[in-house]
Amino acid sequence: MPETIPSIGFGFWKVAREDAADVAYQAIEAGYRHLDCAADYGNEIEVGQGIARAIADGLVTREELWVTSKLWNTFHAPEHVEEGCRKSLDDLGLDYLDLYLVHFPIALEYVPIETRYPPEWVHDQEANSGMKRAKVPLHATWGAMEALVGKGLTRRIGVCNYNSALIHDLMTYATVQPYALQVEAHPYLTQDKLVRIAKDYGMEVTAFSPLGALSYVELDMAGQGDSVLTEPVVTAAAAAHGKTPAQVVLRWGVQRGTSIIPKTSKPERMRENLDIEDFALSDDEMAAISALNANRRFNDPGVFAEAAFGTFHPIYD
Amino acid sequence: MPETIPSIGFGFWKVAREDAADVAYQAIEAGYRHLDCAADYGNEIEVGQGIARAIADGLVTREELWVTSKLWNTFHAPEHVEEGCRKSLDDLGLDYLDLYLVHFPIALEYVPIETRYPPEWVHDQEANSGMKRAKVPLHATWGAMEALVGKGLTRRIGVCNYNSALIHDLMTYATVQPYALQVEAHPYLTQDKLVRIAKDYGMEVTAFSPLGALSYVELDMAGQGDSVLTEPVVTAAAAAHGKTPAQVVLRWGVQRGTSIIPKTSKPERMRENLDIEDFALSDDEMAAISALNANRRFNDPGVFAEAAFGTFHPIYD
Repeated sequence: MPETIPSIGFGFWKVAREDAADVAYQAIEAGYRHLDCAADYGNEIEVGQGIARAIADGLVTREELWVTSKLWNTFHAPEHVEEGCRKSLDDLGLDYLDLYLVHFPIALEYVPIETRYPPEWVHDQEANSGMKRAKVPLHATWGAMEALVGKGLTRRIGVCNYNSALIHDLMTYATVQPYALQVEAHPYLTQDKLVRIAKDYGMEVTAFSPLGALSYVELDMAGQGDSVLTEPVVTAAAAAHGKTPAQVVLRWGVQRGTSIIPKTSKPERMRENLDIEDFALSDDEMAAISALNANRRFNDPGVFAEAAFGTFHPIYD
Repeated sequence: MPETIPSIGFGFWKVAREDAADVAYQAIEAGYRHLDCAADYGNEIEVGQGIARAIADGLVTREELWVTSKLWNTFHAPEHVEEGCRKSLDDLGLDYLDLYLVHFPIALEYVPIETRYPPEWVHDQEANSGMKRAKVPLHATWGAMEALVGKGLTRRIGVCNYNSALIHDLMTYATVQPYALQVEAHPYLTQDKLVRIAKDYGMEVTAFSPLGALSYVELDMAGQGDSVLTEPVVTAAAAAHGKTPAQVVLRWGVQRGTSIIPKTSKPERMRENLDIEDFALSDDEMAAISALNANRRFNDPGVFAEAAFGTFHPIYD
């Protein structure tokens, strides 16, 4: 049983529902033991089917897997937190999670599961209502998250998309140690101070979108020219170590002490992304890649929520 | 009596204690009706003496003034909030504040007034202890701030140095509307999204350090070369309007809808900083000055606290 979060996980964001069962199975077959899921990804039933098949085929046991899921924004009210968690458990076909995270520091009005699931960002899609904020404090949500640990529904709890100010506040009221912080991080957004303060507080840090723009090109949230994979310091390190540029960037993420959750639907790419433990970047290479930092954030609700649904809701400014 | 925060205030940060009474008097004489104070500035007794003299001389009445003060980090515990507020009131010689702000979203261990006042950042200066965080949630502090309004100690309450994520959370638990947000803002740090979300929530926004680096050169937190006052778009607008570069930058701050709190100890500069209501920058000039934004923050506890006392405590990352 993984006692700490495995450094390399497989991220299910944007894995199409119809592919997710096979992708989950193939990821486990390729060697992934850390699966990063969320209610919002809309594919937990299928990921669960892939997990069940992998277990049935003897590829892995439940205890050997680390499964993360995330509480969606509409389930922040204390009376709905357990419902959100149990729905993810049911969909995944599991009786416990290894880690359950608050997906965003954003509380939205509750949407009953029978009305729409996953509920996504907009309260009433037909009425084009935009986001509908709920007056649920983060400390109330956290208190209900802590209760999930007591009930055995998840082994650990944590947060995503929190900044340093929110983490300071969280640490004043948490009675269960927040296990992990998951945030966007890659060479264009190194988040050095945030990573450092989270670790100072004893939290693990998981980097989503560890390859940077790659996750966002398909969503029109980044251009092809935004790729860190063609940066000379990356390609030079790749040539020097006989690795691909992606492997260099992922290695950089692991070597700086974050766990990473790349996504791909290609089995050969799954193996490539895992195969980064047999080399180490030099201090100079690490520094040169870190120096690419441009505080370039691709995943920002303040921007996409306004463009997509007319609700201005920055959380990183 | 000012019903809303006057656009141009006088900021007492870094006004030396021995000068503060005269500076306060001269500022009122020059026409300032909005005085921005704080326990941490270490000069509230003297500012109060200047106010008292100005009132005694018939320059102004208490009701014509807008006086802001701020709760220091060591008074965040609910049982100490009123003590912090009453100390500022006593020192200022006032029986109510117009606005009382949480100075930082940082809770530090309580330091009794008789031990050291103002308490500043380090818990035990002789022991070189660094900052000592207290487990006081921001919502608990806010609840005690609300009680001050009920007791008539302050007309309004608000926050400083909050980011958008903290403001979203604040709005979920506030039962008294937060009146204002005070943050660093100038052409190198325009904070467009933060200003906009605060206003969306019905808050006034006050810009501290409205002239940018000027406040920080003397603290070695900025270089002379960091001045926005020599920017061509600023000097061109100054020439076009027959104003000084400082007046242009301050006008930009007011015209974008923030209140500003410049500080100076020179009476002629006090008048100059007030004399910005008789001209308007064009849309092009406003846009050109706003385009100087470089997300350049001069006042960052995460940096200065570590350099000064060895405690790493970022709040903006």
